[in-house]
Amino acid sequence: MVIILKNQEFQDRTEAQTDIEDRGYTFGDGVYEVIRIYNGTYFMLPEHLNRLQFSLDETAISYHVKNEGLEELLHQLLIKNEIENGAIYLQITRGIAPRKHPYPQKTQPQLYAYPIPVSSPVEAQKNGASLTLIEDKRWLRCDIKSLNLLWNVMAKQQAQENGHFEALLYRDENHITEGSSSNFFAIQDGKVITHPANHFILNGITRLAVKQVCEKLDVPFEERILSIRDLDHIEEAFVASTTAEVVPITAIDQRKVGTGETGHVTRRIQTGFKEL
Amino acid sequence: MVIILKNQEFQDRTEAQTDIEDRGYTFGDGVYEVIRIYNGTYFMLPEHLNRLQFSLDETAISYHVKNEGLEELLHQLLIKNEIENGAIYLQITRGIAPRKHPYPQKTQPQLYAYPIPVSSPVEAQKNGASLTLIEDKRWLRCDIKSLNLLWNVMAKQQAQENGHFEALLYRDENHITEGSSSNFFAIQDGKVITHPANHFILNGITRLAVKQVCEKLDVPFEERILSIRDLDHIEEAFVASTTAEVVPITAIDQRKVGTGETGHVTRRIQTGFKEL
Repeated sequence: MVIILKNQEFQDRTEAQTDIEDRGYTFGDGVYEVIRIYNGTYFMLPEHLNRLQFSLDETAISYHVKNEGLEELLHQLLIKNEIENGAIYLQITRGIAPRKHPYPQKTQPQLYAYPIPVSSPVEAQKNGASLTLIEDKRWLRCDIKSLNLLWNVMAKQQAQENGHFEALLYRDENHITEGSSSNFFAIQDGKVITHPANHFILNGITRLAVKQVCEKLDVPFEERILSIRDLDHIEEAFVASTTAEVVPITAIDQRKVGTGETGHVTRRIQTGFKEL
Repeated sequence: MVIILKNQEFQDRTEAQTDIEDRGYTFGDGVYEVIRIYNGTYFMLPEHLNRLQFSLDETAISYHVKNEGLEELLHQLLIKNEIENGAIYLQITRGIAPRKHPYPQKTQPQLYAYPIPVSSPVEAQKNGASLTLIEDKRWLRCDIKSLNLLWNVMAKQQAQENGHFEALLYRDENHITEGSSSNFFAIQDGKVITHPANHFILNGITRLAVKQVCEKLDVPFEERILSIRDLDHIEEAFVASTTAEVVPITAIDQRKVGTGETGHVTRRIQTGFKEL
């Protein structure tokens, strides 16, 4: 039996329904996190909760992670579901109210947290995978981890239909941003290059972990914007996310990345990540 | 007792809940319409259903309005709720499935349709209202009437907090798009000017009605992009939407529009719209 957390209470998964006028359902008016569990422990939980509070504050959803004791509730959720390895999905919406655009007054935010099945993409992690370039048509607040994910979904679908692991999004030919559900990293002159953490991308928790690993390994880590042309001159590439972890990228559409095999630096970062 | 339509069935509003893994709830993966009812009859229903099918097709949600007999179901919904004047809100999501970005296979789209209270903004319609310029940070498929409405909501909230009727969105200083939940029209040299119906705006049903009224009244109707500077030289302005109908705009932030009173052309269009 799967147990879910609804606000401050635990209930059976089969009972977990929300009202059709939950603003998460009518406006995508909510924010979320996906938190990985390894060996019965949350991975980088404080970082996830910090980012969650950032998303809540930016959207003016009045939920305070600390005041609500969310960390403790999440620990109980993990124990109740006896999860050793997996992930918790957590979302908080502005609440339930008759459908009108402005924020309703005196509405209780609705929180749901529950286990979701995740499996590391072992084959892609080992042998590398390919990306396909797709225009980034998302909104201009991608730093907020909101429920407005329709373009992410559409891009991922298009990528997978065409046999690719993930989409590589770009605003224009001079501006690559990130994947549809991952951050993108290129390696050039031995440096790891990724998009600056601004409103064009989600500042991924695994991105933070990669940064830490690079510092540990003494690999230079640089935040700057890459163009599509730059892809012809990179030595290695990888994507990173909570569910995919670190996946080497060996091709981007028809383009071979470097030698077309998983790069040496990528492999070191992948190993360093596993050691975290 | 309010009756709602859920897929092909009618049920009591109080029972209307959806599963927390409805993709409308986790990804905003769905589309919607708001249809006005005047004197016991739907207003421009075929146009709404056409646009709904467009949104469904663009997002590859496999629901066919005609095959499902949606028009007939909506007529039954109206009768069951004995609505003389009001509106029906209708949304269709991709369906319920474990949370993964790509489209799930064999998932049933979920439709909910139900009455929502609407009241024409009589005071604003009569005396005019003001707008405030806010950057348009929405995605680049605003032609799809999707549930990804977080920026619309945030912009509307900001506008109303600052005492304005509505937001006037702009991509950059040379590109005004539309309101957060309405289309924007300016009048210059006696011509009605509005943004072309492309991916930057929602092609509003009331916008179509305004176009028809202009043709009837022999008022030139031009589709072109206005800049912020253009606002200093317009004679009149108004916004139009299903719920607001036609609302004269007399000020945009500190800027007086024309004489600062409801314009003559706007009033004719407003009257013409009521006669439709």
